[in-house]
Amino acid sequence: MWEVLEEDLAAISIGAAAMGTGGGGNAYLGMIHLREQLRSGLRVRVVAPDEVEDDWFLVAGGFMGAPVVTYEKLRQGREEVRAIEALQENVGRKIDAIAPMEIGGENSMTALSIAAELDIPVVDGDGMGRAFPELQMVTFLMYGGQPWPAAVADDKGNVVVIHRVRDAGSLERIARAITVEMGGSVGLAMAPMSGAECRRSIVPGTLSLTREIGRAVLVARAAKRSTTEAVLSVTGGSRLFRGKVVDIERRLTGGFVVGHIDLEGFDDDAGARVRIDFQNENLILWKDGEAVVSVPDLITLLTTDEGEPVTTELVRYGIRADVVGIPCHPRLATETALRFVGPRAFGYEIEYRPLPRPGVAAERGH
Amino acid sequence: MWEVLEEDLAAISIGAAAMGTGGGGNAYLGMIHLREQLRSGLRVRVVAPDEVEDDWFLVAGGFMGAPVVTYEKLRQGREEVRAIEALQENVGRKIDAIAPMEIGGENSMTALSIAAELDIPVVDGDGMGRAFPELQMVTFLMYGGQPWPAAVADDKGNVVVIHRVRDAGSLERIARAITVEMGGSVGLAMAPMSGAECRRSIVPGTLSLTREIGRAVLVARAAKRSTTEAVLSVTGGSRLFRGKVVDIERRLTGGFVVGHIDLEGFDDDAGARVRIDFQNENLILWKDGEAVVSVPDLITLLTTDEGEPVTTELVRYGIRADVVGIPCHPRLATETALRFVGPRAFGYEIEYRPLPRPGVAAERGH
Repeated sequence: MWEVLEEDLAAISIGAAAMGTGGGGNAYLGMIHLREQLRSGLRVRVVAPDEVEDDWFLVAGGFMGAPVVTYEKLRQGREEVRAIEALQENVGRKIDAIAPMEIGGENSMTALSIAAELDIPVVDGDGMGRAFPELQMVTFLMYGGQPWPAAVADDKGNVVVIHRVRDAGSLERIARAITVEMGGSVGLAMAPMSGAECRRSIVPGTLSLTREIGRAVLVARAAKRSTTEAVLSVTGGSRLFRGKVVDIERRLTGGFVVGHIDLEGFDDDAGARVRIDFQNENLILWKDGEAVVSVPDLITLLTTDEGEPVTTELVRYGIRADVVGIPCHPRLATETALRFVGPRAFGYEIEYRPLPRPGVAAERGH
Repeated sequence: MWEVLEEDLAAISIGAAAMGTGGGGNAYLGMIHLREQLRSGLRVRVVAPDEVEDDWFLVAGGFMGAPVVTYEKLRQGREEVRAIEALQENVGRKIDAIAPMEIGGENSMTALSIAAELDIPVVDGDGMGRAFPELQMVTFLMYGGQPWPAAVADDKGNVVVIHRVRDAGSLERIARAITVEMGGSVGLAMAPMSGAECRRSIVPGTLSLTREIGRAVLVARAAKRSTTEAVLSVTGGSRLFRGKVVDIERRLTGGFVVGHIDLEGFDDDAGARVRIDFQNENLILWKDGEAVVSVPDLITLLTTDEGEPVTTELVRYGIRADVVGIPCHPRLATETALRFVGPRAFGYEIEYRPLPRPGVAAERGH
């Protein structure tokens, strides 16, 4: 068990943005809200998955929506809690702990805020090991979890309980339609599960990992060392390209931000060009017509000067960035998981070719 | 209390189609399902509003969706019951009776089917006194009823409970988004209310009225008398135009069928032309740029040969029909009600000019 302190927030925010692979919303806005909560005396206790008791009752919580919307429609901060309350009422039981739905971006902070608000522990881990755009991509559901009930709540007092669904895909489609109608961003509670189920399916240790990534970046910044190298050393990732953003196509469609980013190389990569396709999150890195990296592995842009993770909604012409590939957690690369988060799940007729997993990553269990 | 018998179904089906004012779905398909239920031994008991006890718990039930969809996506028949079961579970109480959501078209039959399936009475009346396209147009909500919880269910096992909403308009928008996602047609349970609330807000006697309209048409057909006159004598309506359908524009948008029908007159109306605007249901009858009849009054097309009500989804070029105007029930014409179902509620900047209410209609309380 460890406690999230105010001085951890900057690091977690950077690490979460890096794990967001371009999506997951803006961790900074969530951080401001959480800082206020901590300053008002609320506390966030983090428990490791193996501290979760078998008979606990947990749900995954976070926000759902196209990240770009969250800049224009600031969340009130109570949506996720109201969704959890509605789900608790439907099930007839209070939750013992919250499991982060996704660790990438804003939702890392959202889970911590829920834990603070409800005064329950948050599990060190999450259901995506990064950020993904759709609900059936949550490990809690992939590995046999029941996709119902779930609940969504908006900032205007509307709360909907998804009482029964045929499958996780139906949950995604129905919840997405409600989210779009509610203005594009809602609080979500989903995947009700026991402690035993949570331990079996969670991507473990990701909350600690975000803090570690962020700390490494902050230390490198202060020491004027390479922030990219700092991220690579902690994550076991590799630098794939260094370039300048020269083209962006981005459109909001069906509740998602979809498009691509083109980079033109400099330094070692002068003369070369790559493209990154995204749906909220970065999906595929293309070079010379070949998929160099693909989901579920992580593709993250880090600015060359400050190591600032670049999100798909804020990326703009001229940004100079390193494209970093980070091997995903093994729990995302099983045959079962690839059906939900491999390239084909996003409509690409290509095979997943895993990034090499260096010893350092294996040792830390990530 | 009276019981719906198999020999009543043809009459109710015709009357319900006439009260559907072009919309409300196809009563015939619902009738086939109900006939099977009655033949299997299920019973439908109809209670008058003044037989409803103060402390009963009721909901309004029916299907929600664009009528045209129900021809291509036949309902399984259990959707409405599953929606009611989910709402009962949310509230923690079983319903004592069902109140028809709308009497026009298929939903008259749907309410009877629910009553048969759950072995509870159905109230003689409904929440629209006709058919209307949106949920906030239900009298149970207009007159102060609580718009939550509500529940929708599709034919694939998906069930959603709308747990809290800000207002009836939010209920409509959220339920509509779910309906569209679920394929365009769902079972709906809404407007949980006490018996006292139901009596205060229901449009009374409409189930009896549909049976009476249908019987009058069937008798006139058999006697080779004017079916239009038969409908007018029972409803207190008037014939406004006789013409041939010469143009139809119809499009499915946002879950509604929207468009207009043009008729060219013959017999007494030779040389004249009228247009009817519709949104699922007929809204306005235009003649020489003037609104001759508007919502909430009923505009119904009856074929000149058989007195068959013509629906907006089946109307086609060449149909010869009488355009009939029927004064709405006074409960739809109050200042409160007009905010929800007057011409302005549909985007028309015109005043509602009520059709004359002849003595015969006043006597029967309609």
